[in-house]
This record gives sequence, C-alpha cells and structure tokens, in this order.
Amino acid sequence: MAHSISIERTVHPKQKPAADQLGFGKYFTDHMFIMDYDAAKGWYDPRIVPYQPIVMDPAAKVFHYGQTVFEGLKAYRTADERILLFRPHRNFQRLNQSNDRLSIPPIDEDLALEALQQLVLADQDWIPSAEGTSLYIRPFVIATEAALGVNPSQQYQFIIILSPVGSYYKEGIKPVPIHVESHYVRAVAGGVGTAKTAGNYAAGLKAQEHASANGYSQVLWLDGVHRKYIEEVGSMNVFFRIGDTVVTPALNGSFLAGITRESVLQLLRHWNIPVEERTLSIDEIVEAHANGTLKEAFGTGTAAVISPIGELFWQGQALRIGEGQTGELSAKLYHTVTGIQKGTLEDPLEWMVDMTKQASVLK
Amino acid sequence: MAHSISIERTVHPKQKPAADQLGFGKYFTDHMFIMDYDAAKGWYDPRIVPYQPIVMDPAAKVFHYGQTVFEGLKAYRTADERILLFRPHRNFQRLNQSNDRLSIPPIDEDLALEALQQLVLADQDWIPSAEGTSLYIRPFVIATEAALGVNPSQQYQFIIILSPVGSYYKEGIKPVPIHVESHYVRAVAGGVGTAKTAGNYAAGLKAQEHASANGYSQVLWLDGVHRKYIEEVGSMNVFFRIGDTVVTPALNGSFLAGITRESVLQLLRHWNIPVEERTLSIDEIVEAHANGTLKEAFGTGTAAVISPIGELFWQGQALRIGEGQTGELSAKLYHTVTGIQKGTLEDPLEWMVDMTKQASVLK
Repeated sequence: MAHSISIERTVHPKQKPAADQLGFGKYFTDHMFIMDYDAAKGWYDPRIVPYQPIVMDPAAKVFHYGQTVFEGLKAYRTADERILLFRPHRNFQRLNQSNDRLSIPPIDEDLALEALQQLVLADQDWIPSAEGTSLYIRPFVIATEAALGVNPSQQYQFIIILSPVGSYYKEGIKPVPIHVESHYVRAVAGGVGTAKTAGNYAAGLKAQEHASANGYSQVLWLDGVHRKYIEEVGSMNVFFRIGDTVVTPALNGSFLAGITRESVLQLLRHWNIPVEERTLSIDEIVEAHANGTLKEAFGTGTAAVISPIGELFWQGQALRIGEGQTGELSAKLYHTVTGIQKGTLEDPLEWMVDMTKQASVLK
Repeated sequence: MAHSISIERTVHPKQKPAADQLGFGKYFTDHMFIMDYDAAKGWYDPRIVPYQPIVMDPAAKVFHYGQTVFEGLKAYRTADERILLFRPHRNFQRLNQSNDRLSIPPIDEDLALEALQQLVLADQDWIPSAEGTSLYIRPFVIATEAALGVNPSQQYQFIIILSPVGSYYKEGIKPVPIHVESHYVRAVAGGVGTAKTAGNYAAGLKAQEHASANGYSQVLWLDGVHRKYIEEVGSMNVFFRIGDTVVTPALNGSFLAGITRESVLQLLRHWNIPVEERTLSIDEIVEAHANGTLKEAFGTGTAAVISPIGELFWQGQALRIGEGQTGELSAKLYHTVTGIQKGTLEDPLEWMVDMTKQASVLK
C-alpha cells in the first residue's frame, strides 16, 4: 500500500559542505520527515518539510522522563550513481522493539521505509560520493506531551533527519586502544540496555570521558552483575578471534543487538569460519592473550563498520593485540562489508536495497 | 553576591485554573527562568521570560543521547500569606551531583536559588492556598548542541518552570497496593540510578504499565544484581516499620537519595525512634509479615510526601500490611511534614525558607 506522504520543498536550499569538512553528524540536509501521534488519533500527518527547528513546550515529556528511541543507518552513492541502503528493514524492526520497551506506540514499518525512501530521494544531491563517505540517516521518536506526570506520553513525533558524513578512517582502517571499564556500568538485564534509547548513551558519557582523558579511544563494558563478562565496546558490539574461532558475546538482554554484528556473523558463517555467540569473560581474554591464542579483536557498528582493537587496558596492564596492527580477518571483514555497501563488491547475502529503483523498499 | 537576572513580564497573563481542576503538572504559570551555556562562555544570560515553547534543532543532543537532569520541589502558601520552600538548597546541591554524573557543567547554586526566588515571586499569584495544594517547581537542564556525535554537549539550557498542583490525596491519606517487580530492573550500582536524570524514568515505565494493568499503584524495585534487595517504590524511597524500628535501604549507589527520605530520617531521630539504614531483602519483609512484626510500610517523595503501602504482591502472594489501613507512624509523619511545609506546625529542624523575606534564600 502506498501511503500519502505530503512534500513541502524548501525554497532556500542550503549550501553543501565540502567533502573534506563533513565529519560526523554536523551538517543536515534540506528536508526532514515528520509524523505526529496522538492517543486519540494514532499516527497521522506523515510529511516531508524543509529542515527546521522543533518547537516544543518546556514540559514536553522527552525533556523530563527520556521517553525517546532512535535508529542509525546509512545510504551510499555508488560509482554508477545508484543509491544503496544497508538493510533498512532491520532498523525499523528494531525501532519497534525499542518502542515496545519504552512504552511508545509502534510505527508502521512499511510507511517508515517509504518515508525514508522519499526523503533520501528528495535530498539525493546531498549524498557524498568520495571514498568512505555516506549519508547518515537518523530516525527518532520523542514524547511531546506537555505534562509532568511520570507515565507514557499521549503524544509523540517520529522524525527522520539526514546528515552527509565523512570517512570514519581518514588515513585507512586503524586499531584503537580500549580501556576496560571496572567502575561504571552501562546497563543490566531487566533494564533498557537492549533498546536504542537516549538514556543508555547518557549513562556512558562519564566512563568515556575518563577513558579519553587517559588516552583511550573507547571503553569496553563489562556486565553489571558479575563485573567480569564482556558486553560491548563504546556503542559497538565486540568480537575476538581466539585461535581459529571468532567469539562474540551472546545476546543476553543487556546490550543492543547490532545490525552490523548480525551481518558480520552472517558473513563469517558464509565463509565457513567457526563462530561462537556465548558468554565471554575478561579473564578468558587475558588468558588467551597470555597463551598467544588471542589473534584479533574488533568492534562492529554503523559508524566505523569494523573498528580493530590494538590494545586493551585492564587492571593496570596493557594487553597488545596483533602487535597493534589491523588483523587479517578484521581487514577482510572491513573491506568486504564496505565494498558491498558501496556497490563495488557482489552482495551475496542480499543486504543492499537500491533506492533509485521504483518502490524498491516497499513490500 | 546578587546576580543580574533580567525580567521580561508577560503582556498576556493566562487564566488560572480552578483549584479543584489542578491535578499534577498539567498547568504552567506565566513565566519561566532560562539560562544558556556554551563551552566557550560558561553559563550566561540568566533571564525570566514569559512561559513559551523551546525552539530547538532536531539534532539537539537531548533528543538522541538523553543528556539531561532535573529536580522537583514545592512552594507552599501559608494561612498568613507567607511563601515557604522546603529545603531548596538541597535540591540544587543534588542537581549539581546529577550534573556531574551526566557530564553536564555545574550551575552556581546561589544563582539558581536567586532565580528560583525571583521566579516564584513573579508568579506568586499562581500559588494555590487550599489544603494539600502547592506550587510544584521543576528545574531542569537539557543538552542543546545540534550534533550527532556521542559525547558531552557543548551547549545547554537550564530552565525552571512552575506548575500549581492539587492535593495528592483528595480524600485524605490512603494506603496503596504495590507490585514487587521481579522481571524489570530500574538501575544498578555503577549506572546512573543515583542521578535525577530522564533515562531512569523512561526505564521504569514498562514495569509501571504492567503493575497498573494488574491493579497495582506502583512497583517495588529490587536490586539488579541479586534481585532480592529492596531499592525503592516507583520513584519514591521506601521505609518499613519492623517491630519498633524503622528500616530503610541504605544509599547504595543505585537509587536516588531523596530529600524527603533524608528529612523523614531526621524527624524520626529527632523523635528518638530507632532507625536503621541498611541492606534489606524482600525475604526479610516476607518473614516479618509472617511473624507479625511488619507494622507499617510507606514511600517518601516530593509529590505524596508520605505514601502508605497497604499491600505488597510478591510471587503470587498478597501481603497485607496494617490491615490495609494507614499506620500510626505513617500518619504522624505525614501530618508533621505537611504541617511544617504549610507553616501550621513549628519547624524544629529549620527546613523551611520564607521567600517573602528579602534575600532569604541567599547566602
């Protein structure tokens, strides 16, 4: 079913930033998508409008009780001028899982995909083409009811904004040092750690600041119950190559089920590389490092795709991994996934959706 | 030091709601306080302006990463037309503790108190006088920088809004039934549970919805590590009278240090009633109920002051407390604290600050 999404085009197109000035999430395109919700009417008035400020009562619930969820994905411009999206259906499925955990009403995933397609096509001139660049897509929901009672909002807005972003690795893929966090905890089973909601990110800022001040790029989070099992790195999932097996923490109810994580698992299985999703302690990593079987470690996420880990700092000790160089498998995964995303490599697992094909994202 | 707070008075005063229509946090007064922060300038431009919408970029960090804190306190109108505040210094001290945990720059507490005094005096006609009514005060900070990187915002707004609120107990203080939560977890030590930040409230909505659907007023949260130690009830602290001793969970780094909690402890000690702040398991409560020593249970918070608990539902069993009636001590605490707040009782612990006295809240 085609949905009726109105479009109001801007009469003041912005100047586009230079490709080498992009950075991440600093510039936004000419348009945005908005849809409103009211408990009495459901979701209504889906519309593409000029990018503009949100005007909201100071008592809006999002400011006070954090009832909000988001997603992040990217659109890529190929050498032959196609526009590819990486598994967008999965993002909107997960948005609704987050909505459920945060007591936010579900959104029609087909409508969301159609809105995304129309918005990206309206702003397609903003999609950069240089190596490593893309158009970052940020769908989010905010509670807008102006009332201070602690209960689910009766009103929401679902918004999609777009930001052209530069290459994550300006000088090629490069390993980073990681601080293993022993004081702060990000989330715990029974909480909201599996939802992509604002509070999880606010909760991680302090540990990140400490790590940065000590020269570390990110923190590796341990579980909040035993303080020994590995959860994730920064806001990425994490993988370790121990001997010939790739191990990643099993989904346990306290961290996000990353779509890049899922895709990397698919690819490893496609390549017949042994993978294990299971409980994994920091002690096991220390031991594998000591006995020489810890070959590689890397994070996975939308921004970096693959982020090799060159060093783990834990209890006063720096564990160097792969002599601080990007591992063979990390490099192969990075080049394969980004090649598929950019359309330069075959797409054996049918991840990419071509937005320039009429109705391609619609069921 | 007197701070220079500019005042722009509204030219369109709103109609005030009828006293019996107030409810909680539904109506807002004619003015609000705003102060801006920029990393290069610090906090600047403190001002009282007509109550008005916030205009913010859709990429503002508060919408995405939940970097926000708040406080809640009340102003009371006495029979002799004084305006009393309950321990406002403690709220701004705690606001800065929350700010620190959320990587938000601290706010000058004297300036915040002066702003609060000027704002309350500007809108003093909005303070209701009927039994149980008050003016609810909501100071909050939101991250306003328009950028999608996950790191502390470079810009913030500190805002105070005011809402006349009705009596929490329309028909007198009354016990409520509480569901002991075994599936969901609110927070864990090492996380942000001790900070008054939005994400903690979003995290509790789902459990609250389940409890409400089953006829329970609130949930009693257990700790996220052992799933057996009592933390708090809804967004209130919780107390139990076991025999002749009053027991409340010790501050353990996973729940908020309530100002009403602290005040109730002061009052109990002032009365020479034995109090214990310690670890307290749900099993101990079940046992005290079984052997007849569990005399009373109640929550403490700004909204209800004292909220007696008439029943705890745990593992399929309903434990009735005090035959479902308000306990003697709960009632005495409620009438004493609210009497002090309303100015009808002596204030032996010097809690109240008279806002009508010139410079009374200033050091």
